Amino acid sequence: MRRKVTLKQIAKELDVSISTVSKSLRDSPEISEDTRQKVQAFAKLYNYKPNLIALSLKNKKTKTIGIIIPEIVHHFFATVISGIEHVANEHGYNVIVTLSDESFDKEVINMEMLANGSIDGFIMSLSKETQHKKDFHHITEVINQGMPVVMFDRVTNDILCDKVIIDDNLAAYEAVQNLIDKGFKKIALITTVDYVSVGKLRTDGYIKALKTNNIVVDPKLILKIEDIDICDHQIEELIANNEIDAVFAVNELFAVTAIKAAKKINLKVPDDISVIGFTDGIISKYSSPSITTVSQNGIKMGGKAAKMLIERLESEEEEDEHYKTEVIETHLVLRESTPSL
Amino acid sequence: MRRKVTLKQIAKELDVSISTVSKSLRDSPEISEDTRQKVQAFAKLYNYKPNLIALSLKNKKTKTIGIIIPEIVHHFFATVISGIEHVANEHGYNVIVTLSDESFDKEVINMEMLANGSIDGFIMSLSKETQHKKDFHHITEVINQGMPVVMFDRVTNDILCDKVIIDDNLAAYEAVQNLIDKGFKKIALITTVDYVSVGKLRTDGYIKALKTNNIVVDPKLILKIEDIDICDHQIEELIANNEIDAVFAVNELFAVTAIKAAKKINLKVPDDISVIGFTDGIISKYSSPSITTVSQNGIKMGGKAAKMLIERLESEEEEDEHYKTEVIETHLVLRESTPSL
Repeated sequence: MRRKVTLKQIAKELDVSISTVSKSLRDSPEISEDTRQKVQAFAKLYNYKPNLIALSLKNKKTKTIGIIIPEIVHHFFATVISGIEHVANEHGYNVIVTLSDESFDKEVINMEMLANGSIDGFIMSLSKETQHKKDFHHITEVINQGMPVVMFDRVTNDILCDKVIIDDNLAAYEAVQNLIDKGFKKIALITTVDYVSVGKLRTDGYIKALKTNNIVVDPKLILKIEDIDICDHQIEELIANNEIDAVFAVNELFAVTAIKAAKKINLKVPDDISVIGFTDGIISKYSSPSITTVSQNGIKMGGKAAKMLIERLESEEEEDEHYKTEVIETHLVLRESTPSL
Repeated sequence: MRRKVTLKQIAKELDVSISTVSKSLRDSPEISEDTRQKVQAFAKLYNYKPNLIALSLKNKKTKTIGIIIPEIVHHFFATVISGIEHVANEHGYNVIVTLSDESFDKEVINMEMLANGSIDGFIMSLSKETQHKKDFHHITEVINQGMPVVMFDRVTNDILCDKVIIDDNLAAYEAVQNLIDKGFKKIALITTVDYVSVGKLRTDGYIKALKTNNIVVDPKLILKIEDIDICDHQIEELIANNEIDAVFAVNELFAVTAIKAAKKINLKVPDDISVIGFTDGIISKYSSPSITTVSQNGIKMGGKAAKMLIERLESEEEEDEHYKTEVIETHLVLRESTPSL
């Protein structure tokens, strides 16, 4: 039985990156002519078919929406999918989900696979690696061929398309302002590295709140986590070595880890140290103390993304270049990890 | 633009169920000739193409695995998907996920959609409604056309295929025996309705443990929950109205709700009442007290399911009817909700 050769196999065989193969097949001037010819010859030899989106689009509608998310063991993304499902099903659409696992290559491969006639349009949130590389050629390609894309949460200004976001900067600002209103001044930030778009925006919101209130920004109190799996020790050091009043964490895992770290050195939450997290997931709800957090409203975000995509799919106009960015409202869910005053 | 008519639209138009449409298109003798003719005529008129799996299988491999799970906001299923992804990617396969939302119709629709040339084989866990209806024609159909299916967790004896399960009966037995060993006698069970296969097996394990230890099974202490969204009040009544030593809950949401109910009437966990749950998810880990629970090892289950499917896909033999059922080992994760003695 003849197996279809994949992008990945071509890349491996020729010892180049998947991105190089993908760009070579599209005759991108970014790739040297020598490499392009090599890739194209190989693809031809093994009968590789680049996707024929434009063709398939003209012939049929699949009534299916493709989703690409960075990870699945993550309550926020799961709620967004629920929101998409609900609205999609109401409008007679099915939904297919794929995971990039925060990998650029997997994002490209999944996009290639789904665009090949399985779906009518994409709803996606960028992988960390894609944001780091700033390589969006796979998305541009799909849009250029006439397949609509809606981005949510982790988006980029480099791509023109419909987007659904929250105002991460404002949400962080409000959370930190809430801590300042309660009299706290030494407020630490536990955030991600800057290339994660939402992490950067939340960091900016934290800094803005401090500056607005004439509190000096102390770099020692800002911890940027690269790898979530080994953050425990860093967070323990941050809390043990600085006399902190409060912590603002940009996700719920950082928040619950901060609480654990505080308990370890016998600090009481919220009596000795307050914590506010981000994302109203089950960790925030069931941890002890339960965690005050910024609710992103994933269900609403997913529903809105689905609505925007379906409107575009069913619009009569050939190509409407007026892209919209919808901002979903956030709110602070007050729980036990901050004083109730 | 001509839209492809879907199973759902045919069902709606003719006011019959999706299952009836699906069976009529396959000339099933279960459906009256009159209905069959009507459905077939309609399908022909609107150019509906039933899936051509056999044909597509002979022509190409997609190197893609399709997953159908009942819900996504559920840590266990998310970990199984991670396990599948990992092994699939190692073997050069992509993964597509769809959700049945516990609905029979959605399970049928998703199966139809994916079987239509997008994937090489299925890994699936049955929806509650499918288990209730005992209607598995969509799965039989796919298998008969030569597309392999691996079932996990919620499986059925009515379908011959590869399966990955845990020994739910034994796992429940061991959890309850652990409570009995600690001296508890009035042990309540919070479980699902019996048609959910794993719920039934865990109920049987609970009963077996009591009987083995000559403890009378008291029906008042067995609570069968139909709708997880409105279980709070039922669980509160169970705990308030019976002098219970301990609770065995068949999932972590029931377990954490039992702890909340106990706290509400000032019972201390584990001093006044002990709780053991099922599924080692983030609720069990981060709730307070943290919850002693049966770990199902979702990652391992997913990995094993992927391995079985890929072996079958890549096997040289035309049709190997020797189906296997792999049993993944469980173990009790001891935490704060049971006494440490």
